[in-house]
This record gives sequence, structure tokens and C-alpha cells, in this order.
Amino acid sequence: MTEGVPNSPLLTDLYQLTMMQAYLERGMTETAVFEFFVRKLPETRRFLLAAGLAQVVEFLRELRFSDSDLAWLERSGHADERLLDYLAGLRFGGDVDAMREGSVFFADEPILRITAPLPVAQLIESRIINLLHFETLIASKAARIRLAAADQLLVDFGMRRAHGAEAGMLAARAAYLAGFEGSATVLAGKEFGIPLYGTMAHSFVLAHDDELGAFEDFARVHPDKTVLLIDTYDTLDGAHKVVEVAARLRDAGIKVRGVRLDSGDLDALSREVRGILDAAGLRDVTIFASGNLDEYAVQALRAGGAPVDGFGVGTRMDVSSDAPYLDCAYKLQEYADRARRKRSEGKATWPGRKQVYRRYDANGLMEGDCITLENAPVQGEPLLQPVMRGGELIAPLTNLEESREYALAQLGRLPPALRELAPRPSPYPVEIGAELDALARRLDSAA
Amino acid sequence: MTEGVPNSPLLTDLYQLTMMQAYLERGMTETAVFEFFVRKLPETRRFLLAAGLAQVVEFLRELRFSDSDLAWLERSGHADERLLDYLAGLRFGGDVDAMREGSVFFADEPILRITAPLPVAQLIESRIINLLHFETLIASKAARIRLAAADQLLVDFGMRRAHGAEAGMLAARAAYLAGFEGSATVLAGKEFGIPLYGTMAHSFVLAHDDELGAFEDFARVHPDKTVLLIDTYDTLDGAHKVVEVAARLRDAGIKVRGVRLDSGDLDALSREVRGILDAAGLRDVTIFASGNLDEYAVQALRAGGAPVDGFGVGTRMDVSSDAPYLDCAYKLQEYADRARRKRSEGKATWPGRKQVYRRYDANGLMEGDCITLENAPVQGEPLLQPVMRGGELIAPLTNLEESREYALAQLGRLPPALRELAPRPSPYPVEIGAELDALARRLDSAA
Repeated sequence: MTEGVPNSPLLTDLYQLTMMQAYLERGMTETAVFEFFVRKLPETRRFLLAAGLAQVVEFLRELRFSDSDLAWLERSGHADERLLDYLAGLRFGGDVDAMREGSVFFADEPILRITAPLPVAQLIESRIINLLHFETLIASKAARIRLAAADQLLVDFGMRRAHGAEAGMLAARAAYLAGFEGSATVLAGKEFGIPLYGTMAHSFVLAHDDELGAFEDFARVHPDKTVLLIDTYDTLDGAHKVVEVAARLRDAGIKVRGVRLDSGDLDALSREVRGILDAAGLRDVTIFASGNLDEYAVQALRAGGAPVDGFGVGTRMDVSSDAPYLDCAYKLQEYADRARRKRSEGKATWPGRKQVYRRYDANGLMEGDCITLENAPVQGEPLLQPVMRGGELIAPLTNLEESREYALAQLGRLPPALRELAPRPSPYPVEIGAELDALARRLDSAA
Repeated sequence: MTEGVPNSPLLTDLYQLTMMQAYLERGMTETAVFEFFVRKLPETRRFLLAAGLAQVVEFLRELRFSDSDLAWLERSGHADERLLDYLAGLRFGGDVDAMREGSVFFADEPILRITAPLPVAQLIESRIINLLHFETLIASKAARIRLAAADQLLVDFGMRRAHGAEAGMLAARAAYLAGFEGSATVLAGKEFGIPLYGTMAHSFVLAHDDELGAFEDFARVHPDKTVLLIDTYDTLDGAHKVVEVAARLRDAGIKVRGVRLDSGDLDALSREVRGILDAAGLRDVTIFASGNLDEYAVQALRAGGAPVDGFGVGTRMDVSSDAPYLDCAYKLQEYADRARRKRSEGKATWPGRKQVYRRYDANGLMEGDCITLENAPVQGEPLLQPVMRGGELIAPLTNLEESREYALAQLGRLPPALRELAPRPSPYPVEIGAELDALARRLDSAA
């Protein structure tokens, strides 16, 4: 278990236990196939970036009920003896197929398939959705910020307003995966090996009797990594104090590395601050901006030519504020070798075990996808790959660094229309394979 | 440590450690006073409901660095020896004052005050915000749904799309605190004692060869708690099958308790389903609705007189979809007995140790608040109460049931203008006490 990312098998919905009990009584323990997919992209996303597979695999490998869990379930009356017996011995011995973390994907494309006995596959639904939904949500938002920032420094600042500790941790991971340079969250450094970045807070300035003294104190203690926050009282006044401190410390061999702006009109202020610094010969002091940033703000600052060298992005990324959830599902596609299809109004699903094939143009850019049945291959690159067989990894998962490189390579293969940020329905063509379409029709007409 | 709610002291931002190092080197370890407050309410909130104090207290009581934390910090280079020594012995020995969980509050009103040595008060900022922000966010959303639903059954269904496991757990807690009857999240039942509710999923129906067989299987296994999900294929067709199953099981003494609708036009479908059930004499079979619900949807269904007896509310509450974050802060208000005030553009704060007084009208409804200095009391009920002194609780915290009763009582004291759901700026009067205003002016003019 990763510290900060607890994995209790009770991270499930009550109805999963209720249904398991019925499955066991009725002997319905044959193989089920569930797939996770997003039904519809938010209007503000032209593509999504798959993330969370590593956490799902960890959850499945550790899946077991503790004595405390079983004792509580018994007391609670939510499980009968037959179910308790089953849970006591329950391990994940099934198969997992999935897209690599960092894969670009689109609506209706499965990014994960679970093949396991029905009661097990049912139990794990809630946590699998919980993990894949959130990390994909944040990676997809972070990817847009990465596109907006081109190759400028991006740091995740969002843990404090993420939705709880795990959200802060997994947002740091998802942002890094999608191409951020690092995070401010210390535990994410320890647990995931993510590079850490930090400057100073307003409280540091406020705790001193004057701003100049605060800057000098900080620089003397951190001669090698001094980034000064200059907006506590007045940003331009703060910039002049940085000049004063830099002059005072020059003889001691201490250099100010950068300043941070956190409020006001960042475009105008960055230009004025740049002017003040340059006029004093501090051309190598960088300007780092933060405060309510997202892909639109970063794009606007860069488009206007604001002299900002890096961005701290917090709340709006860590909660994916313009699209705080995805319309995703984990649906039964096959049971006991028979394909299944839900037909609820507005929520119909494509049946059967599926594969996604991707075609590329002559420049290596993504050209179009086809969702089809696994056993009816078409041309292109198959995106779902075997991950676990019989409960065991068939090969070590790619590590976070490798996944990050893959994600960046994926972003590099986006066609121009997918790289734009303005809200519009995704223009990417995804077709349904002939055999899959035929299967869906067959199931409907048999109903 | 509550399972599912891990509390590592490394749930902090790197700059907290960087600043702590500077504080220690400069001997700045005197008493600091930080307050947590929301700067501005979202347009879709007329009031907020305080939540998360219990988790903050737990975090503070358990605050300590493990050997593994210290070893990693040393290796990482993010802490020098002086800081490592300090962290090794660090415990929270400070004071906490706070509003009770379930308290209604407004912009600029502190709901928590930390009084502790500057380096300690600084370290804990990130996690304190992380906890109070999220639980308050969800409790405030859930309170609106409670108001919309009047006294009808409300169940949290949102864990799967909450932002990680802790978000799912704390959302279940916050919703219950704000007056929900329970949650589907099993671990929230175990850890927080929240009543659990559940029905069945589409996969249960899909795994059977026919819907009728699925309904009958489920009812026979759960004769005492049968709620049947009837929209997998066609809702009205599903309702007719419920009638058939009920007739078939009557002789076995098994009763269908309710049906659940999860898609389509819930208003129209609930009326048609009610008609089908009533015509078959199944007047006591309840109708439970779910699927993209929030306070507006609940209000619309009730206003139109749709025959819905209870609501499962998921994603839109658990991510607070219309306002997925609050503009909140934890700010230094006093250091070494001197009041402090940040003046950043658009983010200026009220200095000093504060108290909030509330006045009520003759009917006991909230009439207006005054934010003032702690040592300058005005008329009304003081809302911040001592919670910890010298690192110890001065009395056991109210338990979740008591906090829930308090929250419901608070909702009962809202004036009519605060009970309405339509987006508009909060019409509630909050004034700034004369002494507080004078202090802020004094600090500004001394600057």
C-alpha cells in the first residue's frame, strides 16, 4: 500500500455486496467481462489522457478482506455466512487488459477490461472507477495546460484545495504524468518520486516586521534556491526590494534566482517587474506566476508575450474546475460467454470484448480510431494490451517516468485540431467496427 | 488514524519546510495565529456549512514524523540537520478555536484558529486547508440538497466519481452531517458509523438472461430489502415485470419494497411507473430516483409533484459540480503579539484574533453577523469556541450524530432568503466590528 493511498476492499458500494450475495446463492460465479470507458467527453475536452492503471493494479494485487473488515461486516448484518466465507478467501485472480497510462483516448473507447468471476468483478467496480476516473480527469486537464505552456516550467500547487489527501497525491502524479515538471506536495515526492518545487508564502513576509528583511533572511538561508514572493503588499514595490536585496547580497556570493507573482494583472505586472529587474542588471532572475491559473490563463499570458518563465497551477487543475467529473462507466459486456448490452435511455453500451485500433498519417499524427470486437481485428495499432493474467502481472508496469515520456510522445502525435483549447466537440473520428455494430444489432433484435 | 483517511505530516507543501528552515535559523519560533476562512462565496451558495473539524483535530493529535519520513527528508536534501532535529521532536502543542461542525457561516468569517509556534502553525497549513475546504464544500452542497428534498430520503451515491478514496469517505461524512440519511459507501459505514443504503446495479440484470429472472432472484435472496432497478432495458416494461414478480412472490410472503429509476425523464417516468404499480395494488412500493441529480433536479421533481419517495445523489454532490472549490485561505493574523495583514490585490485579509457574533430575530432565525476582534465583544452568540489548549482537547468533540442534529437545527434557523436555491449573492448581512476596522486601518497607515 502506498502511504496516502489506502486500499480497503470496503471502498465499495453496498449494492455490490448485496448483489454478490445473490450471485453466490444462485451459483452465478462464471466469468464476467467488464470494461471501463467514458461515455461522452466534456465540451471542454477534445481528447482524454488515460491514467490510474498503476493504482488499479496495486489495488487488485492487494485485494483481501482483513479480520477487522469481516468482523465488522458480520456485525453490520450486510453479509451472510456464505458471503463472509467467500470474502475471507477472496483474491483477484482475473485478467486485466488496458491502454498504457498516458494514452490519448476518446468517448466509448474502453481503457481497461476486467475478466474475472462475476462476484469479484462486481465488488471491485466502485474503486476501479474511483481511481481511473480521477487520475484520467486530472491528467486530461494537465495535458491541456502542458499544451498551452509549450516547454515552460509547470508545477502543481493544488494539494490544499484538492478533494482530500488522496486527490492531492494522485493529482500530483497525474499532472507529472501529463508533462508537468513537478509538484509542491512533499508526500508525492516521497511516494512517487516526483520532483518537488517550492518558493515562499505570504506568511513568511507577514511574520517579518518588514518585507526587505524577509527577503534577505530567506536568501541567506537558501542561497542556492531563492525565489521571492513579491506581492504581499505591493508587487512593484516588492520588485524594487528584490533589487535592493540582490545588491546587498552580491558580495556574499548569494544570488536571487527568481520572483513569484501571485495576484493582480499578471500580464501587466510581469512586464513591469521584468523592466525593474532588467534595469538593475538582474536579467537572469526568472519570473514565476501563480494564482487562479489554468490552460486559458497560461495561453493568454504566452500569446500576449508576457515575460513569465514558469507557472504554478493549483486549484483549477487539481479539481479540473471547468469539468470536475467525467461521464464514465464500468459495464458488464459479457457473462458466461454471452455478450451483454445495457439499453437505458441515453446510456446504451457497446457489447462484447473490445479492442481499439488507431491509424496514423504519414507524419505519425493520429488520424482516426476504430472500436471493434477483440476477435475481429482491423488495421492500425491495437491500444489495449494484456496487463495481468490469472491475477499476476505479465510484465512489470512501466514506471512513472516511462509513462510520462509516453504521454509527452502521445501529445506530440495529436493532430492540430486536437491541440486547440477552445471548447468544441472533439473533431477526432472514431468509428465502430462492422462486427461490433452487427453484434449490438443482434442483441437488440433478440431482446 | 482512520482507515481510508491517512495523516502523514508530509501532506504539506515544500515551501512550508523551506520556510521552517529559515524560521529556525532566524529564531522565529514565537507564537503565530492563523485563521481559516472563505474569502468569497461562490455565486451558487448563499451560505456555507462548516465541516472537517473532527479530521483536523485527529490530524493535529497524531502529528509526528516517522523514522521513514525523516530518513527520506534527509536523503532528499529538503531538510538540513537543524530542521530534521526539530521535526523529529515535533508535536502539536498549540491551541485550536473553531466553529462547531454543522455551523452556518459566511465570507470572511474564520471557522478555525490555530495558535502555535510559527514553524508548527506553518507546517500544518496545507493539510488543514485540504480537510476543511473539502468537507465544508460538500456539506454546503449537501445542505442545499437537503433543503430541496425537505424530509424525503437522501442517500449519497457518489464515491465512485469522488476525487479519490478520501474524497468519497469524507463526502459521505459531510453529506450525512448536512442531513442525508446515509451513504452507499461501505467503508463510510465501518469508519464513521453512517447508515448504509443500496439497491442493485444494471450489471445484475445484464448478467441474467432475462430481467424478470433477475428481479425474482434478487427478491428471493433479499426478501426484506428488495429495491429493483427497472431501467436497464425499458423502464415501463421493467415496472410491469415488477408487478409480475410481486404477484409471483406474494404467496412466498416476499414483498417488493421499492423500485429505482436511473435514467430518462424521471418526472414523467415516475408518474407512469406509479400508475402501473398502483393499478396492480402495489401502492406501498416506493419509487427511488437517481442519475445526475442535484438540488435543482430534486427541487424540480418535487415542485412538479413527481411521485418520487427518495433520491440517490452522487457525482454532482461529491464533486460539488457547480462550485468544485471554495476561495478559502489560512492566513497569518498575528505573530509575536503583533497583528498582521496581507494587502495583495483582491486578497487583503482582516488582521488579529477574531470572533464572530450572530444575532437572531424573535423567531430564532439568523438575523446578522458581526466579525470583530476577540477582545472586543459585541452582542450576539459567539460562534468560535475553544477546542484544544496546549495540544489537548478541552472536551471530547461532539460526535457525528450530534453534529448532524446541530446542522439540521442550523438549517432550521436560516431566514427564508437563505433557503432559496437560485444563484445570487448571499443576502445575509455580515458587518465588521469597529475595533477590527480600526486595527486594519492602523496597520495600513503604519505600512
